[in-house]
Amino acid sequence: MKVIEGGITAAKGFKAASCEANIKYAGRRDMAMICSDVPAVCAGTYTSNVVKAACVQWDMEITKSGRPMQAVVVNSGIANACTGEEGFEACKKTAKTVEAALNIPFDSVAVASTGVIGMQLPVDKLVSGVEKMSKELDDSIAAGLDASKAIMTTDTVNKEIAVNFEIDGETVTLGGMSKGSGMIHPNMCTMLGFLSTDLDISKELLQEALSAVIKDTFNMITVDGDTSTNDTLLIMANGMAGNKKIDSKNEDYEAFYEALFYVCRFLARKMASDGEGATALFECKIIGAKSKDDARTMARAVVGSNLSKAAIYGHDANFGRFLCAMGYSGAEFDQNDVELSFMSKAGEMKVFDHGTPLEFDEDKATKILSENEVTVFVNMNEGNEEATAWGCDLTHKYVDINADYRS
Amino acid sequence: MKVIEGGITAAKGFKAASCEANIKYAGRRDMAMICSDVPAVCAGTYTSNVVKAACVQWDMEITKSGRPMQAVVVNSGIANACTGEEGFEACKKTAKTVEAALNIPFDSVAVASTGVIGMQLPVDKLVSGVEKMSKELDDSIAAGLDASKAIMTTDTVNKEIAVNFEIDGETVTLGGMSKGSGMIHPNMCTMLGFLSTDLDISKELLQEALSAVIKDTFNMITVDGDTSTNDTLLIMANGMAGNKKIDSKNEDYEAFYEALFYVCRFLARKMASDGEGATALFECKIIGAKSKDDARTMARAVVGSNLSKAAIYGHDANFGRFLCAMGYSGAEFDQNDVELSFMSKAGEMKVFDHGTPLEFDEDKATKILSENEVTVFVNMNEGNEEATAWGCDLTHKYVDINADYRS
Repeated sequence: MKVIEGGITAAKGFKAASCEANIKYAGRRDMAMICSDVPAVCAGTYTSNVVKAACVQWDMEITKSGRPMQAVVVNSGIANACTGEEGFEACKKTAKTVEAALNIPFDSVAVASTGVIGMQLPVDKLVSGVEKMSKELDDSIAAGLDASKAIMTTDTVNKEIAVNFEIDGETVTLGGMSKGSGMIHPNMCTMLGFLSTDLDISKELLQEALSAVIKDTFNMITVDGDTSTNDTLLIMANGMAGNKKIDSKNEDYEAFYEALFYVCRFLARKMASDGEGATALFECKIIGAKSKDDARTMARAVVGSNLSKAAIYGHDANFGRFLCAMGYSGAEFDQNDVELSFMSKAGEMKVFDHGTPLEFDEDKATKILSENEVTVFVNMNEGNEEATAWGCDLTHKYVDINADYRS
Repeated sequence: MKVIEGGITAAKGFKAASCEANIKYAGRRDMAMICSDVPAVCAGTYTSNVVKAACVQWDMEITKSGRPMQAVVVNSGIANACTGEEGFEACKKTAKTVEAALNIPFDSVAVASTGVIGMQLPVDKLVSGVEKMSKELDDSIAAGLDASKAIMTTDTVNKEIAVNFEIDGETVTLGGMSKGSGMIHPNMCTMLGFLSTDLDISKELLQEALSAVIKDTFNMITVDGDTSTNDTLLIMANGMAGNKKIDSKNEDYEAFYEALFYVCRFLARKMASDGEGATALFECKIIGAKSKDDARTMARAVVGSNLSKAAIYGHDANFGRFLCAMGYSGAEFDQNDVELSFMSKAGEMKVFDHGTPLEFDEDKATKILSENEVTVFVNMNEGNEEATAWGCDLTHKYVDINADYRS
């Protein structure tokens, strides 16, 4: 597997476009469109929030139906959540506009939105945007890059990646883009993620791979503990690589799985490090846990704790907060088994050993915790399972951003 | 029932003392002691965190044992959590010092700590403090007031209350004090709460009343979602009011229950409004829910959401965040049934009605949300159960306080 240049347009037969639709943001691209030259098998994972945005409900219907997917229309600025029947009509109108412009069935068109909840989308602007973008679809790296910027809200950097790998002598490409900075606590994360591949694979295995991979990637990041109404991750596989179709869990499946995991982990980490107001990527790695679920639960609790996040912002080796978060996570363990260390590029240091706090050099600890990627490493010494979660620090800027996001 | 002046020393036979033990804070009282003239039946509720402070483990043993309780020693500054065997020895040494000074059994002495986790208590300072306070125990209102100040950490105001009520012709008094400002998400908060009453009641009913009352009082507040290692609520009932002993759930029990609920609700709300860095008390009242558990879960999720809390700080009528929090809380409901309003002294305004956002006057909404007590009022229209939760806004000052709490 090799990382290559590009993103959502890297795989064969995928084009993208974007435009300034002026939905809520002025003077920037706020709509994007992805299109496959041919119908693609698709899979999706969605928010677990019972308040699901209209677009989430729309896309769930497509991925469950067994129908192919051929295009995705995305807007930033307004989430189309808590918008009743009018919100659902906006999805349909968007898809119908694509049908008319590109001559593909409206029910193969996914839609995704991110932004303010409880506000109606301006349908006229959506329609104009789709009509414009339909004429500008392009398979260039630049078109993919622009699309990845158009879906940003409070994100400070765009997120995209592409990799290729060999299957059965054929080069298969997998590309993707995502956005997400606040309201990030995926269960399935307002993260939006879009992946495209020219792999030939059965729908069932595509969904199975996606559902398995998110458990240790997108679902292991948190910015603020708020699980969005809009979280959506979609993948389209259009088969244009020409590989022998994957319809069993053979070594070809494993090769794809590895690439998918790499791409999802890359995008997930990038979202965490670009969490609203973040100055650092905050990683927690738990090893030696009794169960995988326990390891995941504790790792997520640590990076999700406001007090832990504030300590990271302050470069403060206040390790009790991390142990406290593990303790209320819901996992069962004995504090007398636990070892806890801090790690970063500046070094590593153990601060807690089997129930007892260790004397440590505060200056060195501060140095370790002042890097822009810091890890809390915990050995539970109770089993063989492990998990890693990613979040970010809690900063003044987070409060700035969210005390007045709507305006 | 009548609210009277005073706090932990209001009930007959209860004395308090406090001192500057210089445990971590300089130039302020940081130890307190409560003592009953006679052995008291006792009840307690404690943190659900699996990482329990040494003092929590100590007190749990007493309240479970059936032995009476006669004194409580409290320190602020260091939590005595994650401190191994040495931490447990500090509890025992403290209790033994009380035994020597006051001639009461060491195993009737509860201990409680709040502050930094993972740091050892300076036992010599504890011992000196206890010896000093043992000579200064006093039943005055002033002694109770000083004790309530000594247990503060990042609290900005002390919290105490006293009420009296009639039982069978006798005046019974119930007083209490609590602290709590950060790491507040009680399941059973680092809240510490201490209640004293001269009521005569069986141990079983005392525990039953306390356990029932916290569900809708202390356990319905959250500051930061972090459930502490030290949460402790203790009540001592020394029987000195001379009422006919309460040993069944008769009307006398109901009169006590009502007073206990009032006192706990008062202290809980006061803790929420004094949450670290808070500028406003943030209340969420859910009515019309299918079940009591659902109502509690949703109300807590709303006041616990960082994004909701930041919106309250910004006086921003971003109601979608509240619906989003209800949606990920774990409760099941249909967004098309929901009505949501904002309320405060400045008025009220409905902003969401049965699945559809309403047009509303932004200026009026901002005015409503600019009061120092604001309520998000939600009618689920799906049942008859209700619950109220209390939290506070998420502010720059919260980040200030917690990015460098240890130093």
